[in-house]
Amino acid sequence: MADPRFFRNAGPFSLKDIAEVAGAEIAANAESTRIVDDVLPLQLASSNHVSFLDNKKYKEDFIASSAGVCIIAPEMTEIAPAGMVLLTTPQPYHAYGRVALLFYPSAIGSGQISPNAHVDANALIADDVDIKSGAVVEAGAEIGSGCVIGCNAVIREGVVIGTNTQIGANTSVSHAIIGNNVIIHQGSQIGQDGYGFAMSPSGHVKIPQLGRVIIGNDVEIGANATIDRGAGPDTEIGEGSKLDNLVHVAHNVKIGRFCIITGQVGISGSTEVGDFVAMGGQSGLAGHIKIGMGAQIGAQCGVLRDVPPGAKVAGTPARPVQQWLKEFADLERAAKKRKTKE
Amino acid sequence: MADPRFFRNAGPFSLKDIAEVAGAEIAANAESTRIVDDVLPLQLASSNHVSFLDNKKYKEDFIASSAGVCIIAPEMTEIAPAGMVLLTTPQPYHAYGRVALLFYPSAIGSGQISPNAHVDANALIADDVDIKSGAVVEAGAEIGSGCVIGCNAVIREGVVIGTNTQIGANTSVSHAIIGNNVIIHQGSQIGQDGYGFAMSPSGHVKIPQLGRVIIGNDVEIGANATIDRGAGPDTEIGEGSKLDNLVHVAHNVKIGRFCIITGQVGISGSTEVGDFVAMGGQSGLAGHIKIGMGAQIGAQCGVLRDVPPGAKVAGTPARPVQQWLKEFADLERAAKKRKTKE
Amino acid sequence: MADPRFFRNAGPFSLKDIAEVAGAEIAANAESTRIVDDVLPLQLASSNHVSFLDNKKYKEDFIASSAGVCIIAPEMTEIAPAGMVLLTTPQPYHAYGRVALLFYPSAIGSGQISPNAHVDANALIADDVDIKSGAVVEAGAEIGSGCVIGCNAVIREGVVIGTNTQIGANTSVSHAIIGNNVIIHQGSQIGQDGYGFAMSPSGHVKIPQLGRVIIGNDVEIGANATIDRGAGPDTEIGEGSKLDNLVHVAHNVKIGRFCIITGQVGISGSTEVGDFVAMGGQSGLAGHIKIGMGAQIGAQCGVLRDVPPGAKVAGTPARPVQQWLKEFADLERAAKKRKTKE
Repeated sequence: MADPRFFRNAGPFSLKDIAEVAGAEIAANAESTRIVDDVLPLQLASSNHVSFLDNKKYKEDFIASSAGVCIIAPEMTEIAPAGMVLLTTPQPYHAYGRVALLFYPSAIGSGQISPNAHVDANALIADDVDIKSGAVVEAGAEIGSGCVIGCNAVIREGVVIGTNTQIGANTSVSHAIIGNNVIIHQGSQIGQDGYGFAMSPSGHVKIPQLGRVIIGNDVEIGANATIDRGAGPDTEIGEGSKLDNLVHVAHNVKIGRFCIITGQVGISGSTEVGDFVAMGGQSGLAGHIKIGMGAQIGAQCGVLRDVPPGAKVAGTPARPVQQWLKEFADLERAAKKRKTKE
Repeated sequence: MADPRFFRNAGPFSLKDIAEVAGAEIAANAESTRIVDDVLPLQLASSNHVSFLDNKKYKEDFIASSAGVCIIAPEMTEIAPAGMVLLTTPQPYHAYGRVALLFYPSAIGSGQISPNAHVDANALIADDVDIKSGAVVEAGAEIGSGCVIGCNAVIREGVVIGTNTQIGANTSVSHAIIGNNVIIHQGSQIGQDGYGFAMSPSGHVKIPQLGRVIIGNDVEIGANATIDRGAGPDTEIGEGSKLDNLVHVAHNVKIGRFCIITGQVGISGSTEVGDFVAMGGQSGLAGHIKIGMGAQIGAQCGVLRDVPPGAKVAGTPARPVQQWLKEFADLERAAKKRKTKE
Repeated sequence: MADPRFFRNAGPFSLKDIAEVAGAEIAANAESTRIVDDVLPLQLASSNHVSFLDNKKYKEDFIASSAGVCIIAPEMTEIAPAGMVLLTTPQPYHAYGRVALLFYPSAIGSGQISPNAHVDANALIADDVDIKSGAVVEAGAEIGSGCVIGCNAVIREGVVIGTNTQIGANTSVSHAIIGNNVIIHQGSQIGQDGYGFAMSPSGHVKIPQLGRVIIGNDVEIGANATIDRGAGPDTEIGEGSKLDNLVHVAHNVKIGRFCIITGQVGISGSTEVGDFVAMGGQSGLAGHIKIGMGAQIGAQCGVLRDVPPGAKVAGTPARPVQQWLKEFADLERAAKKRKTKE
């Protein structure tokens, strides 16, 4: 089971409850009153646990699993171990997510303000906000109901945070308006000056950065990420977008809704990213360009020009992923030919 | 206008004052006593605001702007909207920077030490230093006049900081000598051990890191950057160099004066970077190499060997940018040819 | 000498003591009672100091050095400056490391808990633990003897830390079991949620992350690195592995023993890295792949598929380093040919 030193299990739950939350169909032979104690990965689950199979790369783990209950796609039922109770759904990973949340609901605030937190008398703190040891909340900040402000986090003056938002330990937020149900993980830095200088041989002139950071509802930002505030316009992250660890978002960038921005991605100043764009790890976007809705940017890809909606690109400089794959195949072929000659 | 929750406007100012600070020429037909309330981007400015046009990519925004006053290059005056007052200068971005600073001057300390800060009795704190809630200043540290030490920042023992320097929230500084007018943004880590190990199949031996970090005047370092201290020699960052977010500077590195080191750049140990070098985002330098004065390193470029002064390189491994562009053009041509054949 | 504001010198020591710790042979003509005051780099050392030469790139510094004593490989003795006392060993860098540690031993805790630290009454703190100003230790955490918890560090509930482990300033640790003699530098974030979402056009569903981070003995983790906890399985870092600054380790990753993971590397979810793997700066591994024992991954390399044990790969996508070098040689040749034609 999930380590009780770190996690509180809200279970057990009946098979019926779990199937309902999962939106999955219970196998005909299963007892719906059966009790399930926990969610666990295929390799660790026993008869009283529910597990799941989504990525077919882990089919062998499924076949060898001792899980009592498993959430799977209909086409996998035939290879299931004997005696395993199957919950079938076309989207096992989504279903598992909802079941895991049933057992381990998200933390929300309940009004515990640590005596070791430093909250300015002129900050506006709603009921049911948790503020942990060492956190600082400056004057004029507004924090909505259900928020959790982590240990040694810093909320600077005037920052506005919606409801049920979590700010991680050692995270600092300034010059920002943040929505509801946002999660910002440990060590991220939000709202500092953008990188704006007028270059000069006698010393670069600093340009004051007079915009803000606007973060929509349901955004999640990983650990040690950095989101600079705008230079004049705002930096914006749209509803439901998910940013991973160590991502860098420069000033004036607009990220649309429901984007997937993975680890160590960098987005340069004033670039616009459409809704549902996905960016692979360590990829980067040049400044002042536009990435169309639904475009997919490969890992480590370096994008110097606009990308049309729905396009899939890879390589540096970025080119259509099919072209990039053919180039690589050509290189491999040339290497083999050369080897034969040698 | 800039959001008053976050910014204090020192204006309004007269057109004459603004032109003087900008070093720009006022159009003949303009009233120099005209009052200007704020600086704003072209798209947001109204008749009582000053804006600017520098990057010609935003020409359309200029033509459509309602800004009352605009700082522009002389060659752009012909396409200006009717009624807009023009301040002309060959360097509009520099001029805008100085005007924005007139309205929004940099924060400097004024002697406010928070009762929630933890300042050792044996630290040497000048007058007019601000130390914010939760900040720690250890014994033997010296902090010069006008400095601002952010919330939950940590200044370790013996660290020396000049005058008017700003240390961001949740930033830690150890083993460092820092100049005047330096800005280190939120979450940056300065002075930790360099990555020094003697490799061995029975366990890598840690090499004590006995140098320091020396940071010159007018340096700016972005959020969540890391500057390791030297192994024996010092790590040095020269006067006026500007480092962006998430930059990594390894032990013994020497960065010259007025360099431009953009987001997520990595510089390996003992490498020397000359004055006025510019490095694009996510580029990296191998260890123990020399980058000549004024060299330009492209985004995501991987530099394995010395780069001569003034050279422009791109790609991994780095090669002259002209060669790299031609290689790419060849690949594009080959892809088209292949497509025709198919 | 190492700056006394930052370092405490435990010396002086006799040449005999130094040779013994170094495991090096003293030159026949040397007085073994000679007193040595400090360790210093070749360029800074004087007659009362010991220095070392390992990387032959710095041979000129050796020839010009005024160091009284030097640790070197036997084959270098012939070019030594007259009068320099030589300590010869086949592994000068290892020997220097041990000597430097003699003069500057690692900090370990001695039972100093700052009155400004916030330690929960239900945390289990061994004797001889140092907890510095502003650090937070939550209920249920266990910290072993000799540990040092840095200023404004955060140790969340239930975290277990072995003996003689150092946690840097502004570092946060949650959901983690950490071994002995571990060093985690400033600003690193350990144990936050992995990046787990079930994608959906109506909003991505967050998957609760129910695993932990397990860190073996003698691991070192640089500044501002991020180690996510597992989604269900744990994230694991094996004994003696060394991670540099700004490294990103995603959920469920298994890193073996004695790996060398340099600056800004990214490792995607569920990937397995064998023992003694070395990864160059800014390289990245895709998710769900296996890197064999002793493999070497070049700087900025992007690895999309399994890598066999002992293989050396470079480029994106990764290919054998010999092939990659030949491709580059071909490109250089083509560029020259093109130039001749023009």
